[in-house]
Formats: sequence, C-alpha cells, structure tokens
Amino acid sequence: MTTVRDGGPGAGLREEAAPAGADGEGGRAFRTVQWIGDALGGRLRMIDQTLLPTRFIEIDCNDVESVWQAIKTLSVRGAPAIGVAAAYGAVIGARSRGTSDPATIREALREAAAHLRTSRPTAVNLFWALDRMEAAADSARRVAEVPLLDHLLAEAHAIADEDRAMCRAIGRHGADLLAAGDGVLTHCNAGGLATADYGTALALIFTAHEQGKAVHVFADETRPLLQGARLTAWELANRGIDVTLICDNMAAQVMKEGKVQVVVVGADRIAANGDAANKIGTYGVAVLAKAHGIPFYVAAPSSTFDLSLADGSGIPIEERDPREITEGFGRRTAPEGVGVYNPAFDVTPAALITGIVTERGLVRPVDAATIRAVLGTPQAAS
Amino acid sequence: MTTVRDGGPGAGLREEAAPAGADGEGGRAFRTVQWIGDALGGRLRMIDQTLLPTRFIEIDCNDVESVWQAIKTLSVRGAPAIGVAAAYGAVIGARSRGTSDPATIREALREAAAHLRTSRPTAVNLFWALDRMEAAADSARRVAEVPLLDHLLAEAHAIADEDRAMCRAIGRHGADLLAAGDGVLTHCNAGGLATADYGTALALIFTAHEQGKAVHVFADETRPLLQGARLTAWELANRGIDVTLICDNMAAQVMKEGKVQVVVVGADRIAANGDAANKIGTYGVAVLAKAHGIPFYVAAPSSTFDLSLADGSGIPIEERDPREITEGFGRRTAPEGVGVYNPAFDVTPAALITGIVTERGLVRPVDAATIRAVLGTPQAAS
Repeated sequence: MTTVRDGGPGAGLREEAAPAGADGEGGRAFRTVQWIGDALGGRLRMIDQTLLPTRFIEIDCNDVESVWQAIKTLSVRGAPAIGVAAAYGAVIGARSRGTSDPATIREALREAAAHLRTSRPTAVNLFWALDRMEAAADSARRVAEVPLLDHLLAEAHAIADEDRAMCRAIGRHGADLLAAGDGVLTHCNAGGLATADYGTALALIFTAHEQGKAVHVFADETRPLLQGARLTAWELANRGIDVTLICDNMAAQVMKEGKVQVVVVGADRIAANGDAANKIGTYGVAVLAKAHGIPFYVAAPSSTFDLSLADGSGIPIEERDPREITEGFGRRTAPEGVGVYNPAFDVTPAALITGIVTERGLVRPVDAATIRAVLGTPQAAS
Repeated sequence: MTTVRDGGPGAGLREEAAPAGADGEGGRAFRTVQWIGDALGGRLRMIDQTLLPTRFIEIDCNDVESVWQAIKTLSVRGAPAIGVAAAYGAVIGARSRGTSDPATIREALREAAAHLRTSRPTAVNLFWALDRMEAAADSARRVAEVPLLDHLLAEAHAIADEDRAMCRAIGRHGADLLAAGDGVLTHCNAGGLATADYGTALALIFTAHEQGKAVHVFADETRPLLQGARLTAWELANRGIDVTLICDNMAAQVMKEGKVQVVVVGADRIAANGDAANKIGTYGVAVLAKAHGIPFYVAAPSSTFDLSLADGSGIPIEERDPREITEGFGRRTAPEGVGVYNPAFDVTPAALITGIVTERGLVRPVDAATIRAVLGTPQAAS
C-alpha cells in the first residue's frame, strides 16, 4: 500500500487544490474507489477516508492484504463502496499467483474472497460482490476467448458502473420525497464516499439540489468515528449544499424545534421484512423521528437486501475496538480500564421505516410483499 | 489562578496516588469545590474538571475573574457545584476592595455577583446562590457583631454544607427506585463532581450501592465535552461501581437489548410544571426511555426549581462555541467553515419524566401541584 497524493480535492474545502474532476461534474472532484490500469498491472486506488476532512490522501492497493486492511480500518467504508473495493480486491487476489492458468486463477480468487469476507461482517454488499466475482470466474469457463483476468476486471468494472447507475436511480426515485426548504437529517455517511459515485441517502439530496430544490441538511457527527462530521459535512459543503453539523445527541432537539421535515439514512443490510442494519445510532434516530411525526427513509441499492434473513434478528452486528470510543481522537478521553460497549451497527425495525428508496423504486409500505414486488421489477434503464 | 496539585486522586484510576480522603469515606478522595483558609486570606480551590480523567489538577481562585473563568470554561460544572463556587466567588468579590467598611463590601459583592451571573445562563443554582449571598449581606446589617466578611463566608459554607446534606437526602429518597441488578443509564455528569459532595443522579446509585444493591451503570459519553466519559465513568469506577461507557447514539440500542431498567439524570433548571433543562441529549434519552417503557427520573435539589417559570419554554438555553464540536478532541474533526449548532442544554417535558427526586422527597407524578406539595414540605432532617 502506498500513498499517492496529498492535499487533494476539497481537503479543508480548498476546492482550488482539487485535481481535475473525475467525471467533469460541477462540484464533484473525487473518486472514492477506482481502478488504475489493466488487469495484469493495474492497482486499486481509494481515498483514505480515515484522514478526511483535514487530509486528502489516496492509497494504492496491489495486494489482497492491503485491500483487507483498507476495509477493516475503514479507509474505505459504506456498504456499496466496500462491495466495489472487494470486487477489485478479488481481481488483485486472482492474479497473485503470477500465472494465466485459469484453474490457478480461480483458486487464488477463491482464497482472496474468503479472506476479504472476514474484513467486515455486517455489510452484505461485501459478500454479494465477492459471490458475483466468483460466479464470473465460473461463467468464464464458457467464454474462453477472453483471458480470465480481463473477464474478472470487466466484472469488477461492471459492479462499479452499476453502482454509479444505482446511485443516480436512487436519487431520481427519492428526490420527490424532498420538498424545497426541507430540513433533512442524516446519520453517518451514505454519500459519494460510501459508494462508487453519488451516494444513496445523499443521492436524494444531490438530485433534489440539481432539480433546484434547496434543502438544508443536519448531519449527525456519528460517534465514534465521526463519519458525519468528517465525510458527510465535507461532501455536502463541497457541493455547495447547506449543512449544519450537530452531535448525535442533538438530533432530538433539532427535531423538537421543527427544523427537520424528513430523515434519510443508508443501510448496510436489509432483511426480507425490511428491518435495516445501519450505523449505530440509526435506530435511535428512527425512534425520535416517529416520536416527532417525521418520515424516516432508508436509501439503499437492491444489493443491500439479504432476502435469506426473514428479519433483522439474524443480521450479525460487528463490535469494534473500545479504543474507538476511549481514544478516538488521538488522546485518551475516558479512564483507563473502564468497560466499553461499541456495537458498530444497530437494526431499525421495518415498522419505524416510512419507505426504502432503491434503484428499482420506492418500497412503501415497508413489508416483505412490497419488497419482493419492488426488487422483482426489472431495473429501470438509466 | 494557580495550579496547586497534580497527579491526585484516582487520576487514571490510580487510587494509591490519592491525597488523604476529604471526609474519610471509602473510595471518596476528592473535593470538587472547597474553601481553604479564612474569609480574609482564604481561597477557593476546585478540581479542574476539563483535565479529568487523565490529569487531576486543582486550581486556586483568588479573584472574581478566575471564578468566572472557571465556571465559563467548565473547570467547575454541574448546577449545584456552580452554585457553591459562585457563593465562594461572591466572598472573594466582597473582600476585593481591601476594606472592612460594610457598604463598600456590599457594593463589591453586588458587582461581583453581577459579573458571575453572566458566566452561564442556564443553571439556576448560580442565580439562586448569588441571590442568597446578597440577601445575607443585607441581613447582616442586623447582626453587626459578626464582621461582614465572616458572615458572608459562613453563608457560603452553609450553601456548601446544605449541598452535601442535599446530596445525601436525594440518595436516600431515590435509592428505593433502584433494584439490585438493575441497569441504570445516565447522561452527562450529575455526580460528586457536579456538587459539593455526592451528586444528584449518582447519589441514587451511590446510596443503592452502599445498601448492598449492586447496579450496573451505562454512562453516555455526552458529546461534545464528554462529561460522561471523563467524569461519570471516572467517579463510578473510583467507587468500585460497575460502569460501561457508551456513545450517546448507543443508548437506544442498549435499551432495545433490555439492559436498562431505569434512567436517572440531573437537571440545571426545572420549571414550575416540571419541564426540566439538562445537558443536551437528555430530551432524546427521555423520548427513547418512553418508547422502551423505561422509567425516566430526574434528581435535583429544590434549588434547581425556578417556580417563576410556568413551563420550560422560558428557560434560556446556552449556545456554546462551535469548536467544542469541530475541534473537541484537540484536533480538527470537521471541515473548516462548516455550519454548527451547539446548544448546551435541552428541555425535557414533564410528561416524559416519571419522577423528580429532590432532597425533600419524590415528586411523582410530575406536575405543578405535586411539585408545590413536595417543595413546600420542610426539609427532612439529615
């Protein structure tokens, strides 16, 4: 793993320091996850999100262990972005034996995928993307005219491209839920930094903004790792969207003051009945939204659904290092030896979710039948 | 203001480094606020709570400005402790002209009190204590045989002593609300560090513990200033009480998991109808407690009630420096220039409060009539 660039786009909101925009759009000047080069010599480049917003550094990964570390330590995070990173990680693993022998490549891919699956237990997109890469390796038996590694890279690119299209479709389907002047509260980061492109929850906001509907966003800072303060506030400000940063425990007060008309969050895994795992604190926000009569939406691609789970009780919840809470900011902020509970996610029951915005449409009401109906719909052309 | 001691009681939980216990009780080895010496040459000594839990440093104040700063910057915090500190600060102000002329002393006291009143707007005990010091200066016209400064110091001592008796009485009245094995969630710090002695919310826990009822405490870390992580966890661990530190946004999850049987918090001001201002985030905890069917208690002395306010809408809410959120841990954790909302308190409506534990008894149900009835009761002998 090597650091490739410093002081890049919007670090400290200095937009003049931004590199050339990745896709030429106004305000957009970063790529969360990208592949540089061809299948054999290329590398996976990702923004090290642990250093935002004060430093913009991209890391290049050339081996599976670097990709595993980047996912584990949250250099790349957000369920869709993790899926894309893992797909490229599988390519890196597949080529690691230095041979073009398909059987060896498949074996190396399987081994890499098995390791990458251990990086984070909750985000289902990780498993979904790796399953898909393995399926691609198998299906490639029947398309022998393309070298297997090229075929795998094409599949990883397809996952990334579909993720971009997914973001745009979620934005289109969800923007109608926001009205001009709305206060929108979000938790954690379900933005461009959580995907290959435009975000899920933030896609609604970006799309509404492009449609000329000015909204005001309240970003929960999202302890312990402050993805809201570091990432969401940075992304929104970078795109010129009005954002107010609050501590997580201020959400109730902001709602009570009538400043929030809608809540939108992402998800890391959604069960067949609509119970949704997302960053710790999301469940509390949902309870507060209900108490204040505020609609609560989840925005997530169809790949986030795990229909093998009847409800949220089966979703594994990652517990993380207590030091994220006691030493999360470079210095000790709690007594030595104190007990700590640090679940990284919680599960919001479907009953608290007004609707789920997917790239295939809006799930509302949130129940198993509606989910099946919407997910069964062929994907809208982008 | 001078630093007088370092590496003291329980800093980093090293109890062997503690100075002689202030009152000889097991586990208790610190005095939050104390007066050293006589009226003329004495000084106000306080723990600098901004440095806990990693450093135990006491500060000595010899002028009003130091006291004002200590309150403003939260070296001393917690409504009852602020009241005691302000009372001693009034003595320091009263003697500042270097004369024993009563009229000059009264004028200096008034001036000091007026300044100290500007330090923090929400905690009513500040105003209550200063009013009482001014009243004492006036009543002293009729007890001329005692030098006025001695009379004022005696009044400040009385406020501190009553605060200690109040803590014990709250503990006695409230401990019955806790059962052995209960999980108790608290927010911010309403412990010994918030009072002259034993705390308000934590008094229930300390008393239950002394009665042999082991409880387990979940301490919200309490952003932005982490009083829960820095102070409550430190106090509880120091006394050998089982404590688990969580981020504020984990409270809902801990409740959902059935780990919390009761919530107890302090208050900074309570209106005549029972609406209670307390540290930001308290209101959200109350909403969550209600949603989970968990009783929610406020523990506060009668001096915290402001019966001049019909309800909580009249309680001024202090807004603090945005940098507490964006740079709260010694380094920048949000983009430069981002908008921030940082209310220091919120108001929990009486309807969400199961009961208010005062030194005069338990207010339950929480309404204006019950409050009047309980506050009207002569104070229980301690």
